[in-house]
Amino acid sequence: MKRTLGVCYYPEHWPEAQWAEDAARMVEAGLSWVRIGEFAWSRLEPAPGDLHFDWLDRAIEVLGAAGLKVILGTPTATPPRWVLTKHPDMLAVDAQGRPRGFGSRRHYCFSHEGYRAECRRIVTLLAERYGKNPHVQAWQTDNEYGCHDTVLSYSESARKAFRNWLAQKYQSPDALNRAWGNVFWSMEYASFDEIDLPNLTVTEPNPSHVLAFRRFSSDMVVEFNRLQAEILRKHTDAPLIHNYMGRITEFDHYDVGADLDVASWDSYPIGFLSDRLEGTPEHKARFLRQGDPDMQAFHHDLYRAVGKGRWWIMEQQPGPVNWAPYNPAPLPGMMRLWAWEAFAHGAETVCYFRWRQAPFAQEQMHAGLLRPDSVPSPALAEAAQVAAEIEAMPEVGTARAQVALVFDYVSAWAWDTQPQGADFDYFRLTFAFYRALRRAGLSVDILPPSTRDFTGYRLVLAPGMMAMEPELLAALQQVEGTALIGPRSNTKTQELAIPVPLGPNLPGMDATIAFTESLPPGTEVPLEGGGRFLHWFEQIEGSAEVVQLTADDRPAILKAGALRYLAGWPCEETLLGLIRALCAEVAIETVELPDGLRIRDTATHRFYINYAPEPLPHAGITVPAAGVHWEPLG
Amino acid sequence: MKRTLGVCYYPEHWPEAQWAEDAARMVEAGLSWVRIGEFAWSRLEPAPGDLHFDWLDRAIEVLGAAGLKVILGTPTATPPRWVLTKHPDMLAVDAQGRPRGFGSRRHYCFSHEGYRAECRRIVTLLAERYGKNPHVQAWQTDNEYGCHDTVLSYSESARKAFRNWLAQKYQSPDALNRAWGNVFWSMEYASFDEIDLPNLTVTEPNPSHVLAFRRFSSDMVVEFNRLQAEILRKHTDAPLIHNYMGRITEFDHYDVGADLDVASWDSYPIGFLSDRLEGTPEHKARFLRQGDPDMQAFHHDLYRAVGKGRWWIMEQQPGPVNWAPYNPAPLPGMMRLWAWEAFAHGAETVCYFRWRQAPFAQEQMHAGLLRPDSVPSPALAEAAQVAAEIEAMPEVGTARAQVALVFDYVSAWAWDTQPQGADFDYFRLTFAFYRALRRAGLSVDILPPSTRDFTGYRLVLAPGMMAMEPELLAALQQVEGTALIGPRSNTKTQELAIPVPLGPNLPGMDATIAFTESLPPGTEVPLEGGGRFLHWFEQIEGSAEVVQLTADDRPAILKAGALRYLAGWPCEETLLGLIRALCAEVAIETVELPDGLRIRDTATHRFYINYAPEPLPHAGITVPAAGVHWEPLG
Amino acid sequence: MKRTLGVCYYPEHWPEAQWAEDAARMVEAGLSWVRIGEFAWSRLEPAPGDLHFDWLDRAIEVLGAAGLKVILGTPTATPPRWVLTKHPDMLAVDAQGRPRGFGSRRHYCFSHEGYRAECRRIVTLLAERYGKNPHVQAWQTDNEYGCHDTVLSYSESARKAFRNWLAQKYQSPDALNRAWGNVFWSMEYASFDEIDLPNLTVTEPNPSHVLAFRRFSSDMVVEFNRLQAEILRKHTDAPLIHNYMGRITEFDHYDVGADLDVASWDSYPIGFLSDRLEGTPEHKARFLRQGDPDMQAFHHDLYRAVGKGRWWIMEQQPGPVNWAPYNPAPLPGMMRLWAWEAFAHGAETVCYFRWRQAPFAQEQMHAGLLRPDSVPSPALAEAAQVAAEIEAMPEVGTARAQVALVFDYVSAWAWDTQPQGADFDYFRLTFAFYRALRRAGLSVDILPPSTRDFTGYRLVLAPGMMAMEPELLAALQQVEGTALIGPRSNTKTQELAIPVPLGPNLPGMDATIAFTESLPPGTEVPLEGGGRFLHWFEQIEGSAEVVQLTADDRPAILKAGALRYLAGWPCEETLLGLIRALCAEVAIETVELPDGLRIRDTATHRFYINYAPEPLPHAGITVPAAGVHWEPLG
Repeated sequence: MKRTLGVCYYPEHWPEAQWAEDAARMVEAGLSWVRIGEFAWSRLEPAPGDLHFDWLDRAIEVLGAAGLKVILGTPTATPPRWVLTKHPDMLAVDAQGRPRGFGSRRHYCFSHEGYRAECRRIVTLLAERYGKNPHVQAWQTDNEYGCHDTVLSYSESARKAFRNWLAQKYQSPDALNRAWGNVFWSMEYASFDEIDLPNLTVTEPNPSHVLAFRRFSSDMVVEFNRLQAEILRKHTDAPLIHNYMGRITEFDHYDVGADLDVASWDSYPIGFLSDRLEGTPEHKARFLRQGDPDMQAFHHDLYRAVGKGRWWIMEQQPGPVNWAPYNPAPLPGMMRLWAWEAFAHGAETVCYFRWRQAPFAQEQMHAGLLRPDSVPSPALAEAAQVAAEIEAMPEVGTARAQVALVFDYVSAWAWDTQPQGADFDYFRLTFAFYRALRRAGLSVDILPPSTRDFTGYRLVLAPGMMAMEPELLAALQQVEGTALIGPRSNTKTQELAIPVPLGPNLPGMDATIAFTESLPPGTEVPLEGGGRFLHWFEQIEGSAEVVQLTADDRPAILKAGALRYLAGWPCEETLLGLIRALCAEVAIETVELPDGLRIRDTATHRFYINYAPEPLPHAGITVPAAGVHWEPLG
Repeated sequence: MKRTLGVCYYPEHWPEAQWAEDAARMVEAGLSWVRIGEFAWSRLEPAPGDLHFDWLDRAIEVLGAAGLKVILGTPTATPPRWVLTKHPDMLAVDAQGRPRGFGSRRHYCFSHEGYRAECRRIVTLLAERYGKNPHVQAWQTDNEYGCHDTVLSYSESARKAFRNWLAQKYQSPDALNRAWGNVFWSMEYASFDEIDLPNLTVTEPNPSHVLAFRRFSSDMVVEFNRLQAEILRKHTDAPLIHNYMGRITEFDHYDVGADLDVASWDSYPIGFLSDRLEGTPEHKARFLRQGDPDMQAFHHDLYRAVGKGRWWIMEQQPGPVNWAPYNPAPLPGMMRLWAWEAFAHGAETVCYFRWRQAPFAQEQMHAGLLRPDSVPSPALAEAAQVAAEIEAMPEVGTARAQVALVFDYVSAWAWDTQPQGADFDYFRLTFAFYRALRRAGLSVDILPPSTRDFTGYRLVLAPGMMAMEPELLAALQQVEGTALIGPRSNTKTQELAIPVPLGPNLPGMDATIAFTESLPPGTEVPLEGGGRFLHWFEQIEGSAEVVQLTADDRPAILKAGALRYLAGWPCEETLLGLIRALCAEVAIETVELPDGLRIRDTATHRFYINYAPEPLPHAGITVPAAGVHWEPLG
Repeated sequence: MKRTLGVCYYPEHWPEAQWAEDAARMVEAGLSWVRIGEFAWSRLEPAPGDLHFDWLDRAIEVLGAAGLKVILGTPTATPPRWVLTKHPDMLAVDAQGRPRGFGSRRHYCFSHEGYRAECRRIVTLLAERYGKNPHVQAWQTDNEYGCHDTVLSYSESARKAFRNWLAQKYQSPDALNRAWGNVFWSMEYASFDEIDLPNLTVTEPNPSHVLAFRRFSSDMVVEFNRLQAEILRKHTDAPLIHNYMGRITEFDHYDVGADLDVASWDSYPIGFLSDRLEGTPEHKARFLRQGDPDMQAFHHDLYRAVGKGRWWIMEQQPGPVNWAPYNPAPLPGMMRLWAWEAFAHGAETVCYFRWRQAPFAQEQMHAGLLRPDSVPSPALAEAAQVAAEIEAMPEVGTARAQVALVFDYVSAWAWDTQPQGADFDYFRLTFAFYRALRRAGLSVDILPPSTRDFTGYRLVLAPGMMAMEPELLAALQQVEGTALIGPRSNTKTQELAIPVPLGPNLPGMDATIAFTESLPPGTEVPLEGGGRFLHWFEQIEGSAEVVQLTADDRPAILKAGALRYLAGWPCEETLLGLIRALCAEVAIETVELPDGLRIRDTATHRFYINYAPEPLPHAGITVPAAGVHWEPLG
């Protein structure tokens, strides 16, 4: 399969007379796909039932006639003002109790039945009209679920739906009381109707209550998306896609992905470095105009799992954006680098966001491939270069990696609910493990917690998984190599309680966490022979073999068969050293890479990707600043 | 009197079959007391009027039969859900106007008449049933008044009660207007019904308004507690106790204590160091797993005053807790050290919290003497060691100290209302004076502002008391030694206005504060001969004798008879030097102590308490890390 | 015209018997003016229609008889409690949706018709009674519009008024939708009644929506003030004044000023340094007790423009205040320095705030010329010294400066709405340019964006003006010297959209901003030959002459005729160097001044003003610490 490029386009923003020229220029640049429609509801239906699909018919025709394949978005992320008039209680409510009003986007509560009915109606109309349209070769549901912190809603409709969800799950209030330990502070309920959402309590609510609400909230996103997918399936055979975001963990993407054909994500490397990633000021300054060297790769690998192998970039940063605290411009070359990195990780398609920078409204300072005056921005030439390179490039395929990392959304909710240490965050933890693998030169597969077969992986990492199914543990035991588990893995029940026997309860390993420490910045637990744990340490008892001690002779890493348990959170260099050592044990080759250079192996090629602002040498080649180099795999 | 140990226990959390074994193990460990019942309302009365006291009967019987004395808590800190259904407006409301809902604990407004009636009812039922039970040898009212910021409520019931309180106090709106200076910004009221609570005003409300609300809010806690105490008195002769907290100053503990027999407090040294104490990062890192060396002692001495000589620790930290930003584990030895330190300060009883770590709900990460799997945590052995040591130890008594510090809750409210400098805090100020005394090796008595006789004290400190009664000033004048007053002492009227003549208005001292400076971090007023004031400086005029000058020749300390007035807030080292000098003048011996070592003298023994993580030498002995040493007083 | 001094006085705060003595002491100190009445509504009308003007009659008579001229304030900043009872919805509502209640001041929404009617009534009564009173020689409307963040209100009355304002401006919803680009996220409106205020949206609202709300909110202040001015005009010939504040940009002061005769402002140099000015800790520590050396001058020059040449200080800081985070005392000499600095900038009158420190209510810690015990504070002698010096001083006049700076309130709103970089602030930007001019020893005129003739200025600066009228650009082109424009100037339409052709669109200059970067702290764009841009950089294309390059050869400054365009935000030293170079080109002499020394030239004299805490030498003279030196201009 040839990789392809695309772009996001808003015909409703521009004079109809301009569409054909725009389409021609897209094709000229080598773009194949064009995403449209996802914010156009007020133009499709300016008043209730007053449908205006004719312009969309013509837009699709113009784009299709130019040779472009259309991804058509359902417009449900931006209901028009009249929808709110009709359903005044459709708004989400924030944790402080304030309705999140009209005037931007995503102003709906996933639980609201009335709004769901409106979505059913408009999606049905679109599916009926365009489901068989030959130019419409993919569909996108809604837009960026969870963006702007929209998964959790404390509305009346959420409250009602949560009570129903609880009743379904627990069947009786007594069962719920027992499951949550509500006896603790006389929090017992006599009826599901007594249960409120877990916000605005005097002190923290019961973590089981919160985790149930987090599971429920994720399920609401899944239901909302499924509603659309089911309608679309009836009318089209084109693949269904949603465009996810970076470091959004409030809903289970695997669950949403199960109802779709392709995962995609919106990749804004520079904005994400600035607004959603831990890092020293030096690190952030070094990668100011490139983005973090592992952040994109992590999501590429994650969404490959969410998409069951099929994934796209639906929105690729094309220049400075508007929404981060600071918005520098990408270094020349980065718009090409990001695309090739995505392809190296298996992306089928990379769509740039957006075709022409809008001169108005919220994103007017967000670059496009064209400037508002239709002059090309630097990104257009880079996109065209990538398109040309794709033509010249043999198919690169996707290979199974030698190492895997398990990523689990429920654990993100669990540690968000009960961090125990103020800086304990599940994404941060798993990303630290991912970065260590990448700094060692490895390609990585990210896998869901439902994985039951790790055949082919000689190293599997499962840090911080709150509760591990016995079947998962059994599969990890079977790894031909090493499965590194912990810290904090399998230390909770599915209700976010402490299991008895205590964690980590690994098969064949006599190891019990006697107590746990969270450590403030500036404090550490030193390890024997150098290295240190930060943030987190577990005091472990039991007869299991100890393969690494702390400096004061307490277990730091334990071993039983293929399983290793890690009793703390290693600092970055310690973790890198540990990965190197584990790889050496299982005959996985690691390399030394300069700061900013990364490697990704496909089925046929090795890609060298240089995020640094200077050329970097490695293994006899020199990769230009913000450059990519590839060569066939030996 | 022999000191005793105890533990907090929740029979409602465990199978009844386990109670007897738990009780036996408690006795085996040397524990005498067991606190129960304070969160059990939903099990005592799962529905309105549906009483289930039988299990509590049996629990008391099992514990008592094992030889334990029971402290029975009234369960009013955790009203069940149905109480809220019955009284939907019983919730406190926060300063932002949001009701503080059900789902954790302390979800009630102290002013709510309906909730008070519920409390009267349940407390009466408990008192009638268990008032004469021979195993119930003490009672606890409610739990941790003020925890989770629950004293101040901006509810409708608080508003109504405040208006009544104001009407009682001022009798006429005109009197109130004059007392508060409401003419200032046309804030005059024509009726008490026009007066709102002082939140959500455009800019700061009148400080007199705020202070009245703070006095009212404290009175509501006192009324609420008295209501319970009066019922209990009718049915029992056992001592009545409340368990106070650390650094909670929102209500006047002396006033609550006046209605009770014993003061107790809940001592969490490691959590408090992390979440409620100023300190450099170095200081916090050094005492990470031990707690601040003066924080516990301060509260021991304070609650000895609140309890009129009788005090306990009702909850002693037994390992890592769950609620601080970071939660490290205590160093081995600390669970013993904390208990002995409490005894050295006169505690009758130290109860550990809790027997077995709960595997569920909010405090599942809070250690107990047992782990959730019933295996002993390190604390159990330390508790047993203390129990054994008590047996071997002669009675140690409590001696009057040579130095006293006056602590005044109203001043805490006053400076909270009108800090004038962003970091001016009454507790911080008084704690700085207390620390200096302790670093000089001194034992300290903390005294209430109602003290009228300081006989026996050669040094009395009264920093930051907003308004000082003439009788207090007269008593301080009579000190045979020195009474150090200021900064900011006696500079306000009881209405938080400026008195004319201006403060400090000390008897016999011609000294007037011409103006006051608050100083941002990084600025200071240097003193002649070294030393410096931080945070605060007062420019003083008058003919009083000056005993210390600033570096630019302004008065820093003034003197008249026994009284000294301190015109600024000395830095830590300056304050220590001042304390040493004052002690030398009045023939109190001070010593040089290494960082972390403290001394406490009882009637018969000198205790050396080492909070440091390494052994510390002093006066020919070496106290182990996290260790205690005692020897008979010469 | 002789400069004069005055003071703010509150006869309603003091016994009537004291008024005469107070008046005599004012006269004795050399004060000419006394401002009264602005907070006295509850004493003038304690109940609806219950008027008590007799005491004010007598107060004016006593003050006038002593020889003082009265400024009478309308009391509308502090409506009594009964006004709120009558108009319960008159309160402003904050951005979080909370009404801003009674209990301090400024508790009204500018849009509320009912409150406007009350103001009309009370102002009419006052104007009728005192409009011809010979002692009342000036009037003040309300007090400190915008203080305590009171311009923006999200109330129902604001919502209604905003809809009307929009309907007036846009005439049809379609026109509004087009103007704002509401198609962007389906934000289109079918009716003006669908438009809400732009708060509490899910993510940022449309910037055009926000800017419209900002323009509307400013207009409400203008309307509110005009309502009073029109009534007063009918009854008095005395000048009408409002007292503005420092760094309040939420309303257009030029627009308010157009309806008044004199601008005045309330100058609190020490509080402002602490609570509303960027600066390094070293800078803030150096000027801790003096205030920033340019902050007062900036506002003097700004309000000279707002007052169309006539301006006062209505409130001059007389010692420590109460409202900043920290409140140190002024260095001796500063109360004199600040007054002379104001006169050097053209102030007609400087009134100290206040006569006697109030011992009660919110400002009890705010110094006055007298202490609460009527003893003079240090400020009184300094005021008297200034009064004596005025007598000995020839009239100093006001000269046109050689350099001008354009200051535009709309741009402040625009960049507040769309900063693009978190630290981009219009006041901060313009103040940086102003400071550079002052550090070069220059006197400055600040001009409104309506200026159409720059004759006489050889250097004009217009940084950061979002949209520039063609007539303004034409006038700048005519400057006989240099007009320095940018960064970010003329890059937006009046609707806060991006113009096509793209900015800066300067006449005669082929220069287009291809894209823009905002830069986080610690990053920079270095310039050729040294120097650097911080915060902001624009990538410029076009054939315009480049007179300065970045270190990597991109345009940094471009030139076309008199116009220069600056493509970034220079750091402080770079900007100073640039100003010196530009001045050298146009034959304006600049000087080297030590840190803290400033120069201001009047028509006849050169003033040297030393904000430093040590004496500073310059040009053969030495100006004392916190001192002023003046000499006739050569």
